[in-house]
Amino acid sequence: MPGPGRHDVLRLVGIGLGDPAHLTVEAVEALQAASFALVTVKREDDPLAAARRAILDRYAPDLCVIEVVDPERDRSASSTSSTTAYEGVVSDWHEARAAAWESALTTAWTDPDLRRDVQFRAVDSAQLGANLGAGVLLVWGDPAFYDSTIRVVERVLARGNLAFEWDVLPGISALQLLAARHRIVLHEVGQPITVTTARRLREAVDAGADNVLVFLTGRLELDGLENWTISWGANLGAASERLVSGRVADVLPAIESARADAKADAGWVMDLYLLRR
Amino acid sequence: MPGPGRHDVLRLVGIGLGDPAHLTVEAVEALQAASFALVTVKREDDPLAAARRAILDRYAPDLCVIEVVDPERDRSASSTSSTTAYEGVVSDWHEARAAAWESALTTAWTDPDLRRDVQFRAVDSAQLGANLGAGVLLVWGDPAFYDSTIRVVERVLARGNLAFEWDVLPGISALQLLAARHRIVLHEVGQPITVTTARRLREAVDAGADNVLVFLTGRLELDGLENWTISWGANLGAASERLVSGRVADVLPAIESARADAKADAGWVMDLYLLRR
Repeated sequence: MPGPGRHDVLRLVGIGLGDPAHLTVEAVEALQAASFALVTVKREDDPLAAARRAILDRYAPDLCVIEVVDPERDRSASSTSSTTAYEGVVSDWHEARAAAWESALTTAWTDPDLRRDVQFRAVDSAQLGANLGAGVLLVWGDPAFYDSTIRVVERVLARGNLAFEWDVLPGISALQLLAARHRIVLHEVGQPITVTTARRLREAVDAGADNVLVFLTGRLELDGLENWTISWGANLGAASERLVSGRVADVLPAIESARADAKADAGWVMDLYLLRR
Repeated sequence: MPGPGRHDVLRLVGIGLGDPAHLTVEAVEALQAASFALVTVKREDDPLAAARRAILDRYAPDLCVIEVVDPERDRSASSTSSTTAYEGVVSDWHEARAAAWESALTTAWTDPDLRRDVQFRAVDSAQLGANLGAGVLLVWGDPAFYDSTIRVVERVLARGNLAFEWDVLPGISALQLLAARHRIVLHEVGQPITVTTARRLREAVDAGADNVLVFLTGRLELDGLENWTISWGANLGAASERLVSGRVADVLPAIESARADAKADAGWVMDLYLLRR
């Protein structure tokens, strides 16, 4: 628990999609006022590490960075149609992340020697210790969309071993950058938009949605939607960014090709698209 | 048409909801590099004028500001259930805006004397003239959601009297700030979200949506949704901000009261909410 005179705070900071210029002024100020940054890194090469590094180098080069190695997630259930199985896997993964973050935060806030219990590395371990009050948690995009950070922080608190204040600073989301790059409004005048995942695209179409923003794509399965219009983007905000738009049947080969190019350029690809009936 | 040696550019800059700290670094840089800012102002007192002024004062105090008085919009059709009538009114209004913006841009880019044809005022009219290349158009929130700026700019170009390059810089949208303030993800794990307007909320509910973000509220009509959960916010980002969340039946009176308070504080109220079944 926080000792007297210290106020432990964790700020969840949306950092956009890798272009340092997409951070808000508020986010920049939060990085500059923080004592440490907690970032999650993948066990293997993390494609986002370089972008994160560029952001910290530009705005807070001296910030103590604690990198928490992300627990493995069981991907075998991702392709199943069982929602219960999928949610179970996600829940297990959130709990494992919460345990890892708890260890890292405990190290930052109370006891540097606890860091043997968690896989992480600090850029400068001499900075770790009991006098680190305000931390920032860098979140890709915006914590409001298809991101687990808020849920994991709630689990850290629910575990009951740490108490701290926390808040959320919004960041530019991929769907906003998709709209900006294509210079479109995400819906027709006064009409709705459904934001969903590729797994659930068919449900949205079957329910009558005619304007669908699809996250977490992975693969493009658009059978039966050949006459819809698509506005597609990959690696938005990065040097490897690619954009394609048009009638699905006309541009699908161009999208597949651009997707492969983006992956070849960057070593990774993240894409999303707007589909309009 | 642009003369030789000059490159006319219009940048649509999302400025968030009035807190200058919510601008992105990219947006700040765009304001600082611009030769003029085009802003729309309402015929009567504009509740957003002070917030816009605070943003310009902080980041670009010497920028030439051209205020275009917004054409009146026929509100009589807004309450009708006829989509065609509603769209007709919106279309007429977009065309009237396009004509006004064309006049202002013509003044900025080619001929200061043309400004007698349009209702606007420049903060410093001596700055107007043929050497103004890059303009910024300040857009409340993000141009991607329930905003007409992109459509009006397309109409200006379609009129054929001006040619210019244009791009879009995303800004923090009200839905992001709503999520951040309530510290929520806008959807359950892997689930969709429907973003719509109060006019069309019933359609979304009838189609089976169980997670709905409602813009352009005006009035709260939530009959039959008493057991849903609501996360509501008004005047997000402003000093008059109000937040309420809970079961609809339990918190509706608190929302009505907070809405009145926000309006009393600021002289205006803009609210939105997330409804979850």
